[in-house]
Amino acid sequence: MPGVLCGVDIGGTKCSIALIDYDGNILDKIYTCAHVEEEEDGMVKMVAGHVKELLQRNQLKETDLPALGVGCAGHIRFSEGVIITTSNLKGYNNYPLRDELQSHFEIPVIVDNDANAQAVGEHKFGAGKGYEDMIFVTISTGIGAGLIINGKPYRGMTGTAGEFGHSIVEPDSELICTCGNRGCIMACACGLALPHLFEKKLKEGMKTLIKMPPNFNISKINGQTLKKGLDIGDPVSKAVISDSAYYVGIGLYNLFQTLNPPLIVLGGGLTNWGDFYLNKIKETFYELARDMIFDPIEITLSKIIGDAGVIGAAGLTME
Amino acid sequence: MPGVLCGVDIGGTKCSIALIDYDGNILDKIYTCAHVEEEEDGMVKMVAGHVKELLQRNQLKETDLPALGVGCAGHIRFSEGVIITTSNLKGYNNYPLRDELQSHFEIPVIVDNDANAQAVGEHKFGAGKGYEDMIFVTISTGIGAGLIINGKPYRGMTGTAGEFGHSIVEPDSELICTCGNRGCIMACACGLALPHLFEKKLKEGMKTLIKMPPNFNISKINGQTLKKGLDIGDPVSKAVISDSAYYVGIGLYNLFQTLNPPLIVLGGGLTNWGDFYLNKIKETFYELARDMIFDPIEITLSKIIGDAGVIGAAGLTME
Repeated sequence: MPGVLCGVDIGGTKCSIALIDYDGNILDKIYTCAHVEEEEDGMVKMVAGHVKELLQRNQLKETDLPALGVGCAGHIRFSEGVIITTSNLKGYNNYPLRDELQSHFEIPVIVDNDANAQAVGEHKFGAGKGYEDMIFVTISTGIGAGLIINGKPYRGMTGTAGEFGHSIVEPDSELICTCGNRGCIMACACGLALPHLFEKKLKEGMKTLIKMPPNFNISKINGQTLKKGLDIGDPVSKAVISDSAYYVGIGLYNLFQTLNPPLIVLGGGLTNWGDFYLNKIKETFYELARDMIFDPIEITLSKIIGDAGVIGAAGLTME
Repeated sequence: MPGVLCGVDIGGTKCSIALIDYDGNILDKIYTCAHVEEEEDGMVKMVAGHVKELLQRNQLKETDLPALGVGCAGHIRFSEGVIITTSNLKGYNNYPLRDELQSHFEIPVIVDNDANAQAVGEHKFGAGKGYEDMIFVTISTGIGAGLIINGKPYRGMTGTAGEFGHSIVEPDSELICTCGNRGCIMACACGLALPHLFEKKLKEGMKTLIKMPPNFNISKINGQTLKKGLDIGDPVSKAVISDSAYYVGIGLYNLFQTLNPPLIVLGGGLTNWGDFYLNKIKETFYELARDMIFDPIEITLSKIIGDAGVIGAAGLTME
């Protein structure tokens, strides 16, 4: 099996370890949720074990891989592969993930933020193929971006470039982000904001078609709830999705003015809202950008379906 | 005279042409306001003539220069050296400035946006010396930025990267920018906004210590008026300067989250407001960034005094 890459995607719910080919196709994969139960060191041993298991059952040696690529949500100090903080997993403050994993392998281990990894994946295998510059934006529980500049991921000083989800677009907003600030895009537009936005519409007198039993916990409203709402034409779901799209549209416009990219690729769970969402995002974007666009900019959905995280992590090893 | 560079800074009021050394010191300079009276072609001839005059009176040949560097306000298509639009000079829509200038010279002519040129100047000769990455932000009539990424200016697809002054920070603001949008940083914080902000404070009942005769035209309020106000402790001037600083602080914070730079250098006329202004900008920045700064970021004033534009333009020829 020539030309094989290996990636690990460590998320708050699931952990995927996969072998992929140089076209970004998954060849074999292990998927687990057990890592959430483990302490840091136990998780590292588990991941290392799964990588070795994958290699063994595919008759591969470790040295058949150029490196091991790991994507992890949170603030990652890229140069050292240290998780500074992550809200997805308990613990892991200033945890030297790369060094710990490295002790199990001869080949280099690369640890990056998951949005950066996905940007690399999209650039190598997806919608960004052939582009020198692009921005990948993931919209799910939170919002983050990965920047590809001059053909390479750009991570900034620490490795946290692309954290534009925390950029402020409504300083007096009543919505407060987990970061503590008011009115960053994350507070206004992402998964975390949905229950608040939904409740606000109800308080404003809108009626929802979503069945809400008396003990319905509004904090459980998530992207999937609203997707179902959208499918049955629920006006509240549509209004909340429109609000999210509006702030994402502003965010993309701000990225456009700052970085003037030829391509913005959107991924993450909330893009499952589909064309209604994408069109509203574009509507806001083009309304703001109007006559300040001098060369066409493409705004498109990710072309890597499902396993973007682990494919992106593997893509890191092609650098 | 070995190691000489030549830059041209074309502004809405003045035009500077200068020879500088490789340390960024001005060796000789011609300064004119007559270019404003000329049509496009007349301006080009005038500039070319002044460059040749400078060379001649310093016993230099054109080929002693690596190139001719030109900085110009407005939207510049860098690859072609075309002024797409500029609000500083009449005309110049899709004007091929580089080709027109090039017809007068054997050496290459480089035309860039003035903020990009100043970023290059700051990076080569000023506060950014030795940094691989930095952002230069100019705050004057408008607000713009020049990005240095991996040791080089980053201009994006068209050449308009760094136009973050148009990024939206207050979508429902009553302040509308010349671009037509509400609540971009330019609308809220820069020279253009000052009369509106000043008037608003008066309407809110604040009393100014600035002498305002009955026929005083409030639209003439500018950075210098407010500097005088600041010097005499005028509460309205201080409040307006604080408001501007607040929005600039948000803008820098948004840049920080998006690009994670080690250094942001501030230049432009409004930085003459001095420490009061800089401290307020930093106050907002650090209040927002708090525990999301993992490596020190420096926010400092330009170290190139006075002729940053023409020095930056000359710096373009060192690329």
